[in-house]
Amino acid sequence: MVHAVEDEARTTRDRLIETARELFHRQGYNSTGVAQILKEAGVRSGSLYYFFPSKEDLLVAVLEWYQENLWPVVMGPVFEKVTDPIERVFGVLAIYREALRTTGFTFGCPIGNLALEMSDCRPETRRMIVENFEGWRLAIRKCLDDAADRFPPDIDRERLSAFVLTVMEGGVMQSRSYRSIEPFDAAVAQLRDYFERLAPGTRKSEPVS
Amino acid sequence: MVHAVEDEARTTRDRLIETARELFHRQGYNSTGVAQILKEAGVRSGSLYYFFPSKEDLLVAVLEWYQENLWPVVMGPVFEKVTDPIERVFGVLAIYREALRTTGFTFGCPIGNLALEMSDCRPETRRMIVENFEGWRLAIRKCLDDAADRFPPDIDRERLSAFVLTVMEGGVMQSRSYRSIEPFDAAVAQLRDYFERLAPGTRKSEPVS
Repeated sequence: MVHAVEDEARTTRDRLIETARELFHRQGYNSTGVAQILKEAGVRSGSLYYFFPSKEDLLVAVLEWYQENLWPVVMGPVFEKVTDPIERVFGVLAIYREALRTTGFTFGCPIGNLALEMSDCRPETRRMIVENFEGWRLAIRKCLDDAADRFPPDIDRERLSAFVLTVMEGGVMQSRSYRSIEPFDAAVAQLRDYFERLAPGTRKSEPVS
Repeated sequence: MVHAVEDEARTTRDRLIETARELFHRQGYNSTGVAQILKEAGVRSGSLYYFFPSKEDLLVAVLEWYQENLWPVVMGPVFEKVTDPIERVFGVLAIYREALRTTGFTFGCPIGNLALEMSDCRPETRRMIVENFEGWRLAIRKCLDDAADRFPPDIDRERLSAFVLTVMEGGVMQSRSYRSIEPFDAAVAQLRDYFERLAPGTRKSEPVS
């Protein structure tokens, strides 16, 4: 009986997080009202305020969800399919390309959107945005470390991993505005050119398909 | 008499644009209510709706302001002070560094903010965001063209100019979240490394100060 109540509470909480995540991603945090979250989740306001005293508490839970799902949703599938560490970097970028295309260039990177929208947020919220960036960057850093012997010795791989994030976010931003995959593809192609100059022969490691 | 009325109309319209521009930049478009714009501009709602039937019409005027002021405010001062075309590119990036620092990492690039916030906007608004990006990119493209003989012949300068915009926006985004200039500086340093590999000796052209 206690378990059944606990399960139901978990379900309601999860449903709120899932609905809020989807709405924040689609229309932004500030454009999403609590009433819409309640309606789309099919949850009463008392339940919402029981779990999340404010909309920003719900946002923090959404950011925790993204953090917990970075590996299962984004990195894991690429790392399983691709073995070459440098190709893994470009495999991760390809996921964002696919997401841009399948959403008609409307959704973009959920963390990047929040990073620019939440200028006046609580320190906890900002910290969660930074932790999401850090998790992403560290996964890329791991790829670069695994290919360390292919880069010039003076390359700062910590900084290069942040640069990959920079290029992803800047490319996604332009593709959303232009409603075209072209700016994103151009940004990735330029990053590829840079990698080719740092680690010549990178492309040779791509599987022949 | 007609001139005096025209002047007053221009003043009211300009004041609305200036107030909205500042508020949209500081707190975002969706977080800014019409009532706040009216109050801070000291304008009555009838005057607002006379010039701008909707908040989005006011946003379009703000975007036109940015477009008209790209040269006088951003590019002009750099192009006047710096003569080396590649250093002009980094001089433009330094303006964003300065803006991040002086605003405590809160404001960022106004066009980049709007690019991610306005996912569901009118085509005219999106077109104005794209035109602002294009104006910026073309100024960078001009610098790269002026230094054409220093780049490898196979470098696509059109794509490279978009890459500079990509790096600026991605770097600004991270510095805003981290509340630190470090991510922006790291992104620019990595771009500098790329430029050094494309056009060796770039740094030698910097003035000794």
